[in-house]
Amino acid sequence: MEQQDVVGIAAALDGLTEHWSPKVVARVNDQYVKVAKLLGELVWHAHDDEDELFLVVSGRLRIQLEGRDEVRLGPGELFVVPRGVRHNPIAEEEVRIVLVETVTTAHTGSVVVERTRSIEEQLGR
Amino acid sequence: MEQQDVVGIAAALDGLTEHWSPKVVARVNDQYVKVAKLLGELVWHAHDDEDELFLVVSGRLRIQLEGRDEVRLGPGELFVVPRGVRHNPIAEEEVRIVLVETVTTAHTGSVVVERTRSIEEQLGR
Repeated sequence: MEQQDVVGIAAALDGLTEHWSPKVVARVNDQYVKVAKLLGELVWHAHDDEDELFLVVSGRLRIQLEGRDEVRLGPGELFVVPRGVRHNPIAEEEVRIVLVETVTTAHTGSVVVERTRSIEEQLGR
Repeated sequence: MEQQDVVGIAAALDGLTEHWSPKVVARVNDQYVKVAKLLGELVWHAHDDEDELFLVVSGRLRIQLEGRDEVRLGPGELFVVPRGVRHNPIAEEEVRIVLVETVTTAHTGSVVVERTRSIEEQLGR
């Protein structure tokens, strides 16, 4: 990631080879902007102190939320999962997204699964 | 702005009636996500302590930057103006953008012009 470069979202997404493996493409203040490809289901988890923004670029994303109706996002739609709310993203087809989340946010919260990616992996280090 | 609603970016942009008048559509952590329509030139300004992310939805945006080459952004491209860097966005045609910036960021920094919009205006209050 080069902070001061122009980032093409489609090109960054095209560069991803793995599902559920976000890559950092920019930083704005204390937030990372990431791109990811999703397919299937991640895992129920929460981020106790951090909101997480999902913006769908292509495909349709379901986000199951504890204690309320799931949300469904199509291209050009965004949703912020509030801090502390357990959630589970589900992509029945391949979904390409942009994420905005605090630099300290752990991928799957306190839940660690095979798909969990460290921030070093997300930074491509 | 309802924090927990799904936000359609195109619809939010369609709702804007005025150029250079950002509207807050979501908050993620200490950042506001805003939409804006731009046409013409804003004003040279800087945000001393805050980065500002520009993501172009449609049109082509030039951002003049003090001390380095201007950047040109097309649809699906983003750029983060680093804190402290004087900049001047120019839209030779109508450009629709998404902004991400700290909740405390002043629209035109310490420069106040006719086009300057308060955060209350940006929140639709």
